[in-house]
Amino acid sequence: MKSDDFRPGIDRRALISGLALLPALSGTLLPALAQAQTPSGVPLASWNDGPAKRAILDFVRATTEQASPQFVAPEERIATFDQDGTLWVEHPMYTQVVYCLDRVPAVVAEKPALKDVAPFKTVLSGDRDQIAKLSLHDLEEVLFATLTGMPVDDFEAEARKWLDSAKHPRWNRLYTDLTYQPMHEVLQYLRDNGYKTYIVTGGGQDFVRVYSQRVYGIPPEQVVGTAAGTKYGYDKEGKPFLTKEPKLLLNDNDAGKPEGIHLMIGRRPYAAFGNSTGDREMLEYTGAGASLRLKMLVLHDDAAREYAYGPAQGLPDSKVGTFSQALYDEATKKGWTVISMKNDWNRVFAFEGKA
Amino acid sequence: MKSDDFRPGIDRRALISGLALLPALSGTLLPALAQAQTPSGVPLASWNDGPAKRAILDFVRATTEQASPQFVAPEERIATFDQDGTLWVEHPMYTQVVYCLDRVPAVVAEKPALKDVAPFKTVLSGDRDQIAKLSLHDLEEVLFATLTGMPVDDFEAEARKWLDSAKHPRWNRLYTDLTYQPMHEVLQYLRDNGYKTYIVTGGGQDFVRVYSQRVYGIPPEQVVGTAAGTKYGYDKEGKPFLTKEPKLLLNDNDAGKPEGIHLMIGRRPYAAFGNSTGDREMLEYTGAGASLRLKMLVLHDDAAREYAYGPAQGLPDSKVGTFSQALYDEATKKGWTVISMKNDWNRVFAFEGKA
Repeated sequence: MKSDDFRPGIDRRALISGLALLPALSGTLLPALAQAQTPSGVPLASWNDGPAKRAILDFVRATTEQASPQFVAPEERIATFDQDGTLWVEHPMYTQVVYCLDRVPAVVAEKPALKDVAPFKTVLSGDRDQIAKLSLHDLEEVLFATLTGMPVDDFEAEARKWLDSAKHPRWNRLYTDLTYQPMHEVLQYLRDNGYKTYIVTGGGQDFVRVYSQRVYGIPPEQVVGTAAGTKYGYDKEGKPFLTKEPKLLLNDNDAGKPEGIHLMIGRRPYAAFGNSTGDREMLEYTGAGASLRLKMLVLHDDAAREYAYGPAQGLPDSKVGTFSQALYDEATKKGWTVISMKNDWNRVFAFEGKA
Repeated sequence: MKSDDFRPGIDRRALISGLALLPALSGTLLPALAQAQTPSGVPLASWNDGPAKRAILDFVRATTEQASPQFVAPEERIATFDQDGTLWVEHPMYTQVVYCLDRVPAVVAEKPALKDVAPFKTVLSGDRDQIAKLSLHDLEEVLFATLTGMPVDDFEAEARKWLDSAKHPRWNRLYTDLTYQPMHEVLQYLRDNGYKTYIVTGGGQDFVRVYSQRVYGIPPEQVVGTAAGTKYGYDKEGKPFLTKEPKLLLNDNDAGKPEGIHLMIGRRPYAAFGNSTGDREMLEYTGAGASLRLKMLVLHDDAAREYAYGPAQGLPDSKVGTFSQALYDEATKKGWTVISMKNDWNRVFAFEGKA
């Protein structure tokens, strides 16, 4: 197992700085709450009137009305969504990284020799300062150990169990509750208008597929993510199974997003949503298509209801989901629409109730 | 460009022996004929009554009737189909290999230095005996040169043009006409019953996606095939585009089929159709799922209407799409259904007209 074979598509600064904010290793047994549904009949109810809402409504009208010069054939209607920071909360740390750290005790229980070996010893200590100082190589070792080497069915079962119990430290709620109600409404609105909605995430494809149907109404085959290979083999009874391998096939960040879209979908999207520099190429690629395309970026400018970060807006820089000045400039130049959480959304989470 | 990076998923014997049968490099300008439709109202009209037809009808009834103990939720209904030899003719040579050889003159026109260099010189000579003697390394060089290094849009345009003109030497028809009418009917029948139909082919994913919607009613995103990476970049005007790279991501043959299914679909199929040893693992993986699964193999035993090959049945061995004794034994042991072209199909091609 060579660590060079596996470079998870996660920004190093994001990992390390996020670790400093690591919540106590989580674990309760509450079942996942069902997602609130988009209020039927009223599209985009959690969106305030404004340029962002109007951009979505105009795009859908222009591409789905038969008489429109920008009409798009139903089978061509593809919309892609980044996940972390676009569909759900990414602060203070990518949810999947929390999962990996939480899984370390179980991995050590199976391989006790790891108990006294760095970086597992450090993670087990719970010492946040020390954990924050782990090197990228150390973190990769943690990701290896917790995301590969097991049958895909075992991974799925473990991830599912964790998602049903682990909670975000700020809200004390399941991570799957921390999805943005306005984005649920966009997903539903696009689907109601014949769009196939895809997640295109830097996160692990297998991880997101565990809950994508239940949480977003997006089936596993419409999740494109950072993906490692699997290996086909047989158990003692001759029954075949797949094992997750530490071999990276797709780093679904930055240029990897359009490359992943070509690999997994084979069509250029008509609409793309992101929130950080990792989504830049996906929006560029979407925008380079002929005719009307929708390109949108979520700006986290609402510290009260969620978080505020993004240097271009005079907000603190972020180690997770950077919205750089260069990205902001490109968005302005190319006419991409920036969604202000604070101004464009009258509700952030379904659990808040209606505004 | 290191040739070791790219091992196309094509059996060496198949390539080399097929080359001996190489037709003159093709090229006419006839438009593709529309595919004949499945006769409406009568499922599987081109199938004779018998165990194969019954297996399909029974499977669909058992998995789609609400009261059935083997009912499968609509979103879980996935069916996968090999292409070469299962959906269309694979003899005397895989269609895509014919394409690659046909493309050599155009590649040489762009890079004249190749004209006097092996293997391009040999391919250009048209000397079938010499072409048949090309080494695997030589053939890989031809595949490199003709399938990678160009923008994906250019590749798609070229492949489309070729498919609209190149003809099979035996029938003097477009390759896309040489699809099996009974399999069109199975695809349609499964879709009519809520199944999502996928192609899972050892052939090139990008190649098959060019015609999958038009020919099989299968959209690009439901084609899983042998896939190379792409590279994102910008042209002189700053417009982004993807270039096909000589870097193999997925060899979608043998164990690569279930691995590719996991990567691209993320669910285990309920039905799988193949015709050769390259489909063995896909059928095993499908069959290893809980509850009822349909596993079928097309046997080419009809030399008069198509071809006859497969040593297990006392037919000539084949270099393309081997149906080995071991595969036959496994099919018998595990209760996979063998489809006899000769006995189970009353019509092979749509252009034959109704029986």
